[in-house]
Amino acid sequence: MAENIIIIGAGPGGYVAALRAAGLGARVTLIEKEHLGGTCLNYGCIPSKIMKNSADLLLNCLKAGSLGINISGTVSPDISVLMQRKEKVLESQRKGLAGLLEKAGVTVVIGRAKIVSPGKIEIVSDRKDPISLAYDKLIIAAGTVPMNVSAFPFDHEKILSSNDILSLDYIPKSLTIVGGGVIGCEFAFIFSSFGCQVTIVEAMDRILPLPSVDVSCSKLLLREMKKRKIKVLTDTIVTHAESNNDGLDIFLDVSPFTKPAGKLKTESIESDVMAVCIGRSSLAEELGLENIGLKTDKGGWITVNEYMQTRVDNIYAIGDILGPAHVMLAHVAYHEGFVAAANACGQTGAPKAVMSYDTVPGAIFTMPEIGTVGLTEKQAREQGKDIETAVVNFRSLGKAHAIDQIAGEAKMIVEKASGKVIGVHMTGPHATDLIAEATLAINKGLTATDLAQTIHAHPTLAEVMGEAALKILGTPLHG
Amino acid sequence: MAENIIIIGAGPGGYVAALRAAGLGARVTLIEKEHLGGTCLNYGCIPSKIMKNSADLLLNCLKAGSLGINISGTVSPDISVLMQRKEKVLESQRKGLAGLLEKAGVTVVIGRAKIVSPGKIEIVSDRKDPISLAYDKLIIAAGTVPMNVSAFPFDHEKILSSNDILSLDYIPKSLTIVGGGVIGCEFAFIFSSFGCQVTIVEAMDRILPLPSVDVSCSKLLLREMKKRKIKVLTDTIVTHAESNNDGLDIFLDVSPFTKPAGKLKTESIESDVMAVCIGRSSLAEELGLENIGLKTDKGGWITVNEYMQTRVDNIYAIGDILGPAHVMLAHVAYHEGFVAAANACGQTGAPKAVMSYDTVPGAIFTMPEIGTVGLTEKQAREQGKDIETAVVNFRSLGKAHAIDQIAGEAKMIVEKASGKVIGVHMTGPHATDLIAEATLAINKGLTATDLAQTIHAHPTLAEVMGEAALKILGTPLHG
Repeated sequence: MAENIIIIGAGPGGYVAALRAAGLGARVTLIEKEHLGGTCLNYGCIPSKIMKNSADLLLNCLKAGSLGINISGTVSPDISVLMQRKEKVLESQRKGLAGLLEKAGVTVVIGRAKIVSPGKIEIVSDRKDPISLAYDKLIIAAGTVPMNVSAFPFDHEKILSSNDILSLDYIPKSLTIVGGGVIGCEFAFIFSSFGCQVTIVEAMDRILPLPSVDVSCSKLLLREMKKRKIKVLTDTIVTHAESNNDGLDIFLDVSPFTKPAGKLKTESIESDVMAVCIGRSSLAEELGLENIGLKTDKGGWITVNEYMQTRVDNIYAIGDILGPAHVMLAHVAYHEGFVAAANACGQTGAPKAVMSYDTVPGAIFTMPEIGTVGLTEKQAREQGKDIETAVVNFRSLGKAHAIDQIAGEAKMIVEKASGKVIGVHMTGPHATDLIAEATLAINKGLTATDLAQTIHAHPTLAEVMGEAALKILGTPLHG
Repeated sequence: MAENIIIIGAGPGGYVAALRAAGLGARVTLIEKEHLGGTCLNYGCIPSKIMKNSADLLLNCLKAGSLGINISGTVSPDISVLMQRKEKVLESQRKGLAGLLEKAGVTVVIGRAKIVSPGKIEIVSDRKDPISLAYDKLIIAAGTVPMNVSAFPFDHEKILSSNDILSLDYIPKSLTIVGGGVIGCEFAFIFSSFGCQVTIVEAMDRILPLPSVDVSCSKLLLREMKKRKIKVLTDTIVTHAESNNDGLDIFLDVSPFTKPAGKLKTESIESDVMAVCIGRSSLAEELGLENIGLKTDKGGWITVNEYMQTRVDNIYAIGDILGPAHVMLAHVAYHEGFVAAANACGQTGAPKAVMSYDTVPGAIFTMPEIGTVGLTEKQAREQGKDIETAVVNFRSLGKAHAIDQIAGEAKMIVEKASGKVIGVHMTGPHATDLIAEATLAINKGLTATDLAQTIHAHPTLAEVMGEAALKILGTPLHG
């Protein structure tokens, strides 16, 4: 008889696991408390890229004259049209997902899932009586919400979450972003483009202080922020915020997380609104995990092995609910979904699918974009690797000049002995697409010679990879 | 003693060979009759991409309202500003090249080179007396010019070459393009965007009738042309053109090159101007090749072996002057330049560098773009290969919706037995950059499984490669 699989959460991990498990012959029920697509589609990747696309367009319109396109009047953002478009795209994407799931034979149930006992789920929704469902295997993909901070909790009017900021119906004159991570930096460029005065407050000593992002990307991006008059306060924390008539007084202190402690540049900032983008909180608490004896770690995250299996035999978990140690990205969740579905449907004794986090690309939609994969230079050196690095400027590419986007650079990190590429970190136009070639190279253990001998089409931005490889080999061409 | 190497022609092949040979210790003189960068930089890749970039921007401005960017006035192209920008970029790129060459120790001489006897070159310029130079090894990279047709020769006012059209100081109301190849199709989209009524006359039965372009790309692009009201007459030739008061009467006939011969849709077209983009002619004739006993083939092209060596021992040739059989693309010339320089500088008996044309990507800057690499489906079937193909629509990617560019598809062709990817042909946003990953995969003999197991960042357009690979494996995800 077919496995009876329940999946909680229809974000990227959840719906991919559902499609896969159904494809493998399981009876699959996918339970979602709100919208198909989860955070990624509804409050993350997609809406932010819709806004970023319009922000890019606005900036392009503003410089159109110099590119031979005359605009006789004024150019300004219309946030209500932008929000309408956003809703329309999200709705069509959700419908698309619903269609895929239906075609695959997945039963979708909207409601809040709670595990009531081993093998049994209860679903509560506003509209219907609670229903009970039984499962053979359970895949938890319940995700996260924006982290709320007790010192300055979301009021959703002046103190905003990343969800709130994606639904603003006006453009604030000034915006302070707490947290210079991926989300904070993306919003900084978007709202700065819309004419808003943006300040980022970051507790660490650099923006994008992620171990997986080479410090060169942070430096270059900071330079671009300065060009756009985005203010950045690193080594600084927000202690609290007080409402004044027009907005907020935001009070700062020296960060306890970096040393030597710097001097505070300013004691407080006035700002119309503040967006808090300092992380995400697990949604594991609401799931009734205690009823099957599944404990989370102290961060509230669920622990799994490489088969995406929790400590409870027939319970799998995937996606953001695994916490930062497992890389909280949609494309990671997709692959975790593949693995969980394969193993949940697999027969006893059959070889198991294994999740690997070795070669996870990062795509950051700042302006310019950032694409990263593999080790940073720092990580490689800390691991004691004997490495060679090369940095190529995008301005050495004809295409970058043709499209008037010359800011940026690509750093390639190669293991000397083997010649293998072990890291690529780039900031520049289309970097989020260009990182795909680097990811393939690293994933397959390819060398700088392999990349140099591969013909890169001219004039394209992908030439940056060929140029970097040539530079590693000591025979740089254009830069 | 260092080899004394002369290179004729400072296009992509010539200057790369010069930089490489100098890097290998040779004394290098690079002779250029006009501008550093050759056709690519001055009359090809770069200026056309500058125009395409502004055309893209114009179209984006026209639809800005729907993306939440209000433009209060009118939007129109300003061709004189566009041409000024073009000149400025080209000038800076030429200066950049001059700097690279100088830094490498290459002597650059501007003038027309003629081989007067074995080992001896004469250089004629307008400004100076002829000078004589001796060489040990000669690398010919003299390139091509737009092909002139005796039935409707260029008058550079109404009958234009691709060089002319890149320097127009006005936007014609109507433009007929003879030849629906790469250059013709790129111009069609650019001028159509600028508000010009464009007609393409193509002798073959499809636009982009190149063996290396899968027919699916031609079909999809034709659909996009129709959306933009670009008229396309396939199976049709221009017999002659007559000047009338305002423009040209262009007379057509059924193409003798396709069968069954179709019916002529119209006997003639009226058009302000006509651009003839049907190919390129060799510049070998002016070089004095007869003085060293080097004969060209009947097309005027120079024949070389895999070491880029002509039939005369110390003479190498690279770039477009090798003719269509060797793929007339800048990035091919780069690699031919590497090979020629290595072999010209190599010691007798040392292993020789070998040029491979197996995995040459094609980048076509239409709207949407086209990227191709490896075999087409037709080629693969003609070679008797047992293949699997998958087609993924760009509209299945969230990113395509976010940036409002959903038209396009990617076809992946895989050899069944080995699982190896042998061709990728895509039409869609950023296709010219996305083809880089496919090129690496094919060049290194990677499989659909390799691509499917490589994590592609979300939300990016590069996901199309992962989706296509999954579809090949029978487990499609989003489309």
